Amino acid sequence: MAPTSSASSSQPPQPGLSLALQALAARFGNHLITSQAVRDQHAHTTTWLAPEPPDAVVMMRSTEDIQDAVRICAKHNVPVIAFGAGTSLEGHVNAPFGGVCLDTREMNRVLAVNPDDLDCVIEPGVTRKALNEHLRDQGLFFPIDPGADASLGGMASTRASGTNAVRYGTMRDNVLALKVVRGDGEIITTGRRARKSSAGYDLTHLFVGAEGTLGIISELTIKLRGIPQSIAAGSCSFQTVKGACDATILAIQSGIPLARIELLNAAQVRASNVYSRLSLPETPLLLLEFHGSEAEVAEQSAMFGEIAAECGGGAFEWTTKLEDRTRLWQARHDAYWAAAALRPGSRPMSTDVCVPISRLADCVLETEEDITRLGLIAPIVGHVGDGNFHCLMLCDVNNPEEYRRGQEFVHRLAERAHAMDGTCTGEHGIGQGKRKYLAGELGPEAVQAMRAIKSALDPQGIFNPGKILPPP
Amino acid sequence: MAPTSSASSSQPPQPGLSLALQALAARFGNHLITSQAVRDQHAHTTTWLAPEPPDAVVMMRSTEDIQDAVRICAKHNVPVIAFGAGTSLEGHVNAPFGGVCLDTREMNRVLAVNPDDLDCVIEPGVTRKALNEHLRDQGLFFPIDPGADASLGGMASTRASGTNAVRYGTMRDNVLALKVVRGDGEIITTGRRARKSSAGYDLTHLFVGAEGTLGIISELTIKLRGIPQSIAAGSCSFQTVKGACDATILAIQSGIPLARIELLNAAQVRASNVYSRLSLPETPLLLLEFHGSEAEVAEQSAMFGEIAAECGGGAFEWTTKLEDRTRLWQARHDAYWAAAALRPGSRPMSTDVCVPISRLADCVLETEEDITRLGLIAPIVGHVGDGNFHCLMLCDVNNPEEYRRGQEFVHRLAERAHAMDGTCTGEHGIGQGKRKYLAGELGPEAVQAMRAIKSALDPQGIFNPGKILPPP
Repeated sequence: MAPTSSASSSQPPQPGLSLALQALAARFGNHLITSQAVRDQHAHTTTWLAPEPPDAVVMMRSTEDIQDAVRICAKHNVPVIAFGAGTSLEGHVNAPFGGVCLDTREMNRVLAVNPDDLDCVIEPGVTRKALNEHLRDQGLFFPIDPGADASLGGMASTRASGTNAVRYGTMRDNVLALKVVRGDGEIITTGRRARKSSAGYDLTHLFVGAEGTLGIISELTIKLRGIPQSIAAGSCSFQTVKGACDATILAIQSGIPLARIELLNAAQVRASNVYSRLSLPETPLLLLEFHGSEAEVAEQSAMFGEIAAECGGGAFEWTTKLEDRTRLWQARHDAYWAAAALRPGSRPMSTDVCVPISRLADCVLETEEDITRLGLIAPIVGHVGDGNFHCLMLCDVNNPEEYRRGQEFVHRLAERAHAMDGTCTGEHGIGQGKRKYLAGELGPEAVQAMRAIKSALDPQGIFNPGKILPPP
Repeated sequence: MAPTSSASSSQPPQPGLSLALQALAARFGNHLITSQAVRDQHAHTTTWLAPEPPDAVVMMRSTEDIQDAVRICAKHNVPVIAFGAGTSLEGHVNAPFGGVCLDTREMNRVLAVNPDDLDCVIEPGVTRKALNEHLRDQGLFFPIDPGADASLGGMASTRASGTNAVRYGTMRDNVLALKVVRGDGEIITTGRRARKSSAGYDLTHLFVGAEGTLGIISELTIKLRGIPQSIAAGSCSFQTVKGACDATILAIQSGIPLARIELLNAAQVRASNVYSRLSLPETPLLLLEFHGSEAEVAEQSAMFGEIAAECGGGAFEWTTKLEDRTRLWQARHDAYWAAAALRPGSRPMSTDVCVPISRLADCVLETEEDITRLGLIAPIVGHVGDGNFHCLMLCDVNNPEEYRRGQEFVHRLAERAHAMDGTCTGEHGIGQGKRKYLAGELGPEAVQAMRAIKSALDPQGIFNPGKILPPP
């Protein structure tokens, strides 16, 4: 059964589309691709939502390419959808109104690295892993790690974060400046390389998280960090999610600069034991990482061990050796595949919410009860230092009844987060699937403000239509 | 001589003003004040700009007060200017088109403190010192310290930062959510208490730094920190500004989590020696603070001492004792008064820029040369970890020729920062005085985007007109 949402083929054809495609063909030659296979690749999605391929894909190789492609599409009123690595989770690259996908993967140059300033300037198609590979020799790294090898343009557009956010923040905190191609093809520069500025409206942070609906990011200036002298990793099992959350709260209150603190619930630990041949106690597990000097990470690890013991945690093992750290973190690194293996042939679909950390234990527990009640398979992993967690649902969307239960679960989870003063998405974004929760989360006035901003900056409505803003 | 800029009395009278004042009087009684003395108090400014008092001041005591006042002013098309503590530095509270000042100082309640979540909810008139007083018993503090005892609403509106920003970020990084009264009196909620969210456009950060031009902040949810277990302070003299900047860069690259690192140039040290009866070497001075466990601050201090020695610094003294820390930091705490005493009767006027830290030494040196060339008295203090510095000018604005030199200096400083990929203001804001630099800093497209956002969110143009955006 096809889930809700209309494929582009069911939309009325864009009147200007064929003219736009002619002009794009003339400008881009064989970098304009209209084969069904390539179009389908650019609509892949790990959500509930049906793929909605664009009418064409154009491979971008420069800022000028983006400018020209946008100008052509704007002239003919054809939607423009930016594409990075295709790892987004809420239907961000779908084309519900058809249109042209601008694939930025070949815009993958690191334009400048400024080690003294701890920043670099990159094209939007640079991926996280490629960037860190590029930086390693200089002793630098970019800390945001959403798991997938996403592009930095996409990560900025979805306001991505991940396991390191408790220490280093999210994309919101790590983008210094952007260049953004607007509807007439001209470029908005949102900032300079200064670490801070109070010069005018914060356009940088308006475009970070805008999911490509206000313009196309053509260049990013981002903050870097020095690779820590020492990294310690540790793990600790708890009898209850509450114990794990209490330990997290105490650690943060104590000022321990946790670099990572990840929760695996009992269901995820069971899946990981099977998949990764581990023998962890099948109770909630915390995995931690500390960054600093050798003395610092030793002190931090010892402090956390004491806190864990106070909160009913088991022995806290920690190590700074790479091989041992990798082994400790294996359950987390393989979490996705371990979950997937619970139901061979299925694909885990991830949804996320984020609540104030004081409410996290309640939120996870109520969510676990809901999973049981609805008869779903959905292990939980959480960036517990941020109050953010993911449910990896192994749900057969071709089974209408199970699909309905899965949707009910996602709906109830979003409402549960709202009831706890949280957000319906901590790091995946709104995309298509969560548009219906935006007014419930922030109120109609905020949605009206967002709509006014969208109209002000994209008066034609060509940039990634059908995302973020609920239908009027 | 009156500096440029028109006082409100020179503007054509607002046609709706008398009707608005009648309606405000009926609603607010004696909380509406139109005496010249009070109006003048609400236009005081520490800039070059002439005071431009509002037509009336209304004391706000609740969100409903703000809503009603805005509705009345909107109905009659009268400008609305928010007022916190009046400590802003670029004419933010001036009323160049007249209008009504909403004084929020009595909206000074802490509405909720959530220690587990390290956040609190406050009214906009709460000042930084009052908040920290309120929090102390719970072992918490709010880290942003711009020097003055500013209101949190004002600090958010100007995207303030200060000495702690190198460790804790600026207001941009420490506001979780806002409530903002829009032109029709309804309230926009920009976020919830979750630590992070990727739900829609980042309205929070659009209003942070908007200088009251998009609406009136009626409530803030802000991040708190645990008071560190131990605080160490230290100082170190350098032969050159370059040595001090190199030491700063190396310390940051080494991952030392500096809590404060402040530069006083030789002119400021000379002023401080006289004013505070110190005997510091009259060369560039770094003052530092480290926050952490006792072991951490000891290690950090020792590491910095080594780095300072490598960079030609003198002996690095450090201490964790409160009394000794206070003595060490005295030169910084008294910097403003020490500068003022260089020219009794004058008032130091501060301007700030921020550049990438790799360019900071060059920028300070060229600025020092310019001060000499122009025959000005202008000691420099810098938040050197951010690349941000202030010149405290002791300039007689009633002397037309000296005033012209001062203006030339500010102009050249802004252009120097731009030439070094920096910003014309790191933390003071654009206000009135720096509007002319905005297009030079970000380009006309960014200014167009800001203007479009202003029109979208404040279509009547009633909120703090004449600030941020340059005249069309």
